[in-house]
Amino acid sequence: MHVVVNAAMSVDGKLSSRRREQIAISGPDDFDRVDQLRADSDAVMVGVGTILADDPSLTVDDADRRAARADRGKPENPARVVADSRIRTPPDATVLDGRAQTYLLVSEAAPPDFIEEMEDAGAYVIAAGQDQVDLTTTLAKLEGDGIDQLMVEGGGELIFGLLEEALVDELFVYIGSKVIGGRDAPTLADGDGFIEDFPEPELAGVERVDDGVVLHWQF
Amino acid sequence: MHVVVNAAMSVDGKLSSRRREQIAISGPDDFDRVDQLRADSDAVMVGVGTILADDPSLTVDDADRRAARADRGKPENPARVVADSRIRTPPDATVLDGRAQTYLLVSEAAPPDFIEEMEDAGAYVIAAGQDQVDLTTTLAKLEGDGIDQLMVEGGGELIFGLLEEALVDELFVYIGSKVIGGRDAPTLADGDGFIEDFPEPELAGVERVDDGVVLHWQF
Ligand SMILES: NC(=O)c1ccc[n+]([C@@H]2O[C@H](COP(=O)([O-])OP(=O)(O)OC[C@H]3O[C@@H](n4cnc5c(N)ncnc54)[C@H](OP(=O)(O)O)[C@@H]3O)[C@@H](O)[C@H]2O)c1
Ligand SMILES: NC(=O)c1ccc[n+]([C@@H]2O[C@H](COP(=O)([O-])OP(=O)(O)OC[C@H]3O[C@@H](n4cnc5c(N)ncnc54)[C@H](OP(=O)(O)O)[C@@H]3O)[C@@H](O)[C@H]2O)c1
Repeated sequence: MHVVVNAAMSVDGKLSSRRREQIAISGPDDFDRVDQLRADSDAVMVGVGTILADDPSLTVDDADRRAARADRGKPENPARVVADSRIRTPPDATVLDGRAQTYLLVSEAAPPDFIEEMEDAGAYVIAAGQDQVDLTTTLAKLEGDGIDQLMVEGGGELIFGLLEEALVDELFVYIGSKVIGGRDAPTLADGDGFIEDFPEPELAGVERVDDGVVLHWQF
Repeated sequence: MHVVVNAAMSVDGKLSSRRREQIAISGPDDFDRVDQLRADSDAVMVGVGTILADDPSLTVDDADRRAARADRGKPENPARVVADSRIRTPPDATVLDGRAQTYLLVSEAAPPDFIEEMEDAGAYVIAAGQDQVDLTTTLAKLEGDGIDQLMVEGGGELIFGLLEEALVDELFVYIGSKVIGGRDAPTLADGDGFIEDFPEPELAGVERVDDGVVLHWQF
């Protein structure tokens, strides 16, 4: 499986302010780049923190891109994947609106009645990991289901979890011309953080887009 | 006064790991760029957090650059400035080694006997602000002392304090090819963070240096 992380951060590495509201960091050209990346992926993944904060749809915005996917014999939208150990995703979340197949990656600590509720809402539930989702195992299962290119759209907790398991192949970071600041604001990679053996990706591309720049890192 | 901030951050916006140890983020070419920026400045400033974590010298490394400064009738090294509200700088800190003039910016909460101890160690103490250093007032006093170009080398708490007071004119950020991660690791701009009216600098330059890239932002 090929895992591509994409996120937009401020000048100082933040995905949002300490209030964890969605903040417009990028512009129209970057939005278009991200939409293409989505259209090129078999599935788009986020952590439950992003579901709760932003309630994203994770679908392809451009109708031509959806049509092109259909022409290739694919579903109009890539599948959606949420890492959600104990099922905090609300049943009325937009990712459960039926516009695309949705996977919920959960842990063994997920309450069985919540699992049932999610399955009733149309989600495929994959369980692995004791208290938190075992990302290596669940991504391997997704690959077994035909998901070869997985795009990850954040947030910082999930991105760190994937980096910790060495599951990330590529990282696209749009850096926008805003400073957010804040020692408690979410950053591109949160979690416990590394203290040694820092992952050292290669800088494969630098491109100015909108008022900012896209850095492309390869692991 | 012209205030130029310079810092090196990881792919994900961190200045260090959660352990707050000094981490080599940049390489030799960036080190050289920073040394030139120091040599071009009248003073180099850090917060006391950086003194306690790294005990930096803040002097110009290259002998030719020091000689060139002397030729221009300047001291070999720019002055050093530490923002240190209650004087936590230890008397044996390297910034007090006499190799350059050192200013300690303190608040009215700084204990008088500590002030005396610092003055005995050769520092010039400037006090303004009730509990924390009033950066606008103290920087104006530094300007009155002939400091026209002030370089700020971090850390993230001080950088946010300066941004909050709209004192920053330029920001150079070296982004190195390391991921540090960690929700508690210091970032380029910490403090309370903005929740609206985010500063929106312009991206004035993008240059690949060593294994990373230097972004130049203008406020
Ligand atoms: N600028 C951007 O591009 C962008 C993109 C996305 C999000 N955001 C912002 O980022 C913020 C949300 O980010 P976030 O970091 O709080 O949330 P997140 O990464 O979306 O979700 C984190 C949650 O995922 C769950 N998870 C399950 N298994 C995990 C594993 N193995 N490793 C790590 N996490 C796992 C955990 O909750 P459980 O333990 O309950 O499972 C964890 O708290 C919001 O403010 C949002 O607006 C910005
Ligand atoms: N990668 C890099 O380029 C780089 C550069 C520098 C530092 N670092 C790293 O950054 C970390 C230290 O950063 P830090 O953010 O903890 O410390 P910092 O910004 O160097 O110092 C922060 C301290 O400055 C004092 N201060 C006084 N007046 C202030 C004001 N008006 N606004 C804000 N602060 C004021 C405060 O202490 P008082 O309240 O006691 O005055 C504050 O806690 C270390 O891990 C160091 O290795 C990295």
